[in-house]
Amino acid sequence: MRVVIVGGGFGGLACARALDGKPVDVRLIDQNTYHLFTPLLYQVATALLNPSDIAYPLRKVFRRSRNVRFLQGVVSEVDMDRRVVLLRDGMEVPFDRLVLATGSTNDYFGNQDLARHTIGMKRLDEALRLRNHVLACLERATQATDPQELQAWLTFVVVGGGPTGVEYAGALRELLRLVLGRDYPELRLDQSRIVLVEGLDRLLSQFRKPLGEYARRTLVERGIETRLSTLVQAADDRAVTLSTGESIATRTVVWAAGVRPVHPELDPTAAGRRGRIDVDERLRLRSLDGVFAIGDTAAAEGGTGADLPMLSPPAMQAGRYVASVILDEARGRRRKRKPFRYLDKGTMATIGRNSAVAQVGRLRLRGFVGWAAWLTVHLYYLIGFRNRAVVLFSWSWNYLRKDRAIRIIIRSQEDPLIE
Amino acid sequence: MRVVIVGGGFGGLACARALDGKPVDVRLIDQNTYHLFTPLLYQVATALLNPSDIAYPLRKVFRRSRNVRFLQGVVSEVDMDRRVVLLRDGMEVPFDRLVLATGSTNDYFGNQDLARHTIGMKRLDEALRLRNHVLACLERATQATDPQELQAWLTFVVVGGGPTGVEYAGALRELLRLVLGRDYPELRLDQSRIVLVEGLDRLLSQFRKPLGEYARRTLVERGIETRLSTLVQAADDRAVTLSTGESIATRTVVWAAGVRPVHPELDPTAAGRRGRIDVDERLRLRSLDGVFAIGDTAAAEGGTGADLPMLSPPAMQAGRYVASVILDEARGRRRKRKPFRYLDKGTMATIGRNSAVAQVGRLRLRGFVGWAAWLTVHLYYLIGFRNRAVVLFSWSWNYLRKDRAIRIIIRSQEDPLIE
Repeated sequence: MRVVIVGGGFGGLACARALDGKPVDVRLIDQNTYHLFTPLLYQVATALLNPSDIAYPLRKVFRRSRNVRFLQGVVSEVDMDRRVVLLRDGMEVPFDRLVLATGSTNDYFGNQDLARHTIGMKRLDEALRLRNHVLACLERATQATDPQELQAWLTFVVVGGGPTGVEYAGALRELLRLVLGRDYPELRLDQSRIVLVEGLDRLLSQFRKPLGEYARRTLVERGIETRLSTLVQAADDRAVTLSTGESIATRTVVWAAGVRPVHPELDPTAAGRRGRIDVDERLRLRSLDGVFAIGDTAAAEGGTGADLPMLSPPAMQAGRYVASVILDEARGRRRKRKPFRYLDKGTMATIGRNSAVAQVGRLRLRGFVGWAAWLTVHLYYLIGFRNRAVVLFSWSWNYLRKDRAIRIIIRSQEDPLIE
Repeated sequence: MRVVIVGGGFGGLACARALDGKPVDVRLIDQNTYHLFTPLLYQVATALLNPSDIAYPLRKVFRRSRNVRFLQGVVSEVDMDRRVVLLRDGMEVPFDRLVLATGSTNDYFGNQDLARHTIGMKRLDEALRLRNHVLACLERATQATDPQELQAWLTFVVVGGGPTGVEYAGALRELLRLVLGRDYPELRLDQSRIVLVEGLDRLLSQFRKPLGEYARRTLVERGIETRLSTLVQAADDRAVTLSTGESIATRTVVWAAGVRPVHPELDPTAAGRRGRIDVDERLRLRSLDGVFAIGDTAAAEGGTGADLPMLSPPAMQAGRYVASVILDEARGRRRKRKPFRYLDKGTMATIGRNSAVAQVGRLRLRGFVGWAAWLTVHLYYLIGFRNRAVVLFSWSWNYLRKDRAIRIIIRSQEDPLIE
């Protein structure tokens, strides 16, 4: 049985791993050659980790596998009559079972100006670009002669008060505190501003209220301004305008306000809620035979009574579930597997040095204990021993020396030699 | 006394460090925010080291300095009448003493086609681009249906048989050996070709003849083809044509055939031999008062009877020498310092795992002993404890596990938010 998995994120990777060594023939397709550990992306964006610390070559994962093979490509369409996946470069990949794990992308709510004038926090190249950009702003600030211009170079607006925005804002504050005082004696930390903008009336809305409030208090104590119940109305390369009428002169707007699902073109009947693909309780597309969707791109409830959050744990659990359904079919088992059930093991987010929030069932952690729990869990889930060792080293270095080694500006060119 | 140093390479950095804490006011200008340890650039290009392992923030070097300050900028011109350096963005930096340490760039001997269709090995972004490119070629090779196309994706031509070309070719062979067998089961190592092209009749011409011959033999034993006394006549994105008439179908031509000096526009009388700036035996420009030139960009003999090689040791020694001349002047010392003398401490180059050549005075090392010496010297000269620790870890990992962790393809975008 030929299984094609589209997407090497948390869902697709979990599915491919669960099928590794089993009596099916698996092709894992991704546009990138690596699996990205997105929860640590903000640490690349703040010069704490190198891209390779959180990007793991997919071919390496399946290096010893006899039945899982990787293919780099972008899927443009699924031809259900011929049961092939079409890649953008014209290649066709046939399948008996198809798993769509294509994830999500930055959501600008249709506002192309926002897309153009902000920097996202979803892909590895965005995190790198953000690192380069922030450091370049500091260099420009040292050369600014006009005080208003200076202030714009040193003002950083972060849009979105979910875990990504909160974690990035906290880490950026530490980066500025570390480098402004030492590397840029021309500048002072109190000249810099970080403004975190959130549309809802609290931060970290997926956590219980007291934890969101704790996060806000901690950020404010560390010198970050927050704007709750506030939307971004417009942005250009000099300023951002908020729904309250406030205009903030800035050269840096970070977009962490949300993501929307992406997937190849499908039968219109497959359209589910809010752009996610409609699936049944066994994660199959209702309209297309032998096709599954998991993770951010699928509108699954997993027994929770609401669409699952667009986070890695539901994607991973769904990936493993779909693998077992496919194996049942490959082995000709008659008995139908129980519907997919999502088990919520908890959520966590760091706010900065020695501070994080976590909720696991009824347990709520915060402060240093939450932070230690965050470190342990994230280190555990990082793929590969080398990555773990290197990340642990970087974290320890940063913690003890209060230093970030990777604060260099590099721009890698596009490759004109490969079209 | 205001001292402006243009260039944060080996020469400029050594000069700035020698002036640190002394009674002069130093401005160090570079277009990049980091000092690049170029001898290890080929290891970034072959996925062994991360860019941040060999790029060290210049501001960090002078973080505790009271008299050395960094400025990011590109110097376009030197106005000798007003004694200011003009930056491309319009800024003016006044000086009493000026040190030109602007280094060198890839030399294509005026052939723009070569510049367009090859990848250099001189800057950090080139090394990153080369890493991305080679990995992308392997991905493309797995999808090639035509055998000739497959061969072109797997053929790598390296132009230049100096240390850069030899080290890169050897390291690329190891990368292919490591990843082709394991990560790309679809491909075989013996399908890949590496061709090293050199214009002279031997490799490593700056070493004694037997060492160059040893390097060639070692490379050939490891499966690298060499073409001596051969020039590249033309290149496009499908093939390279050699002066022997041979045409090699390839998607990758690496340009390590030489560098030429670069410096801001100067008085025509400052022009020295082969594009280098004419200086006297105290490294002063003959025509311009209070201006020095060091390193690749200066035509200095240093008592050797010939122009100094374009390598880091002469640049560093010249940087320290010029610093002492400037200090003499700042302190009003009358006695003239002796002319600059270059002390050759030796040269070395790796050929790959367990193999290197080194010559130190009359001593010649090769094989494992040369390799161990190479490791020690390069680790010692790397700036900063953290870089050293990380590089040592990466080297040990690579050596023991025969693995390269950084084989990921990432392209960082240009930053359109900063013009």
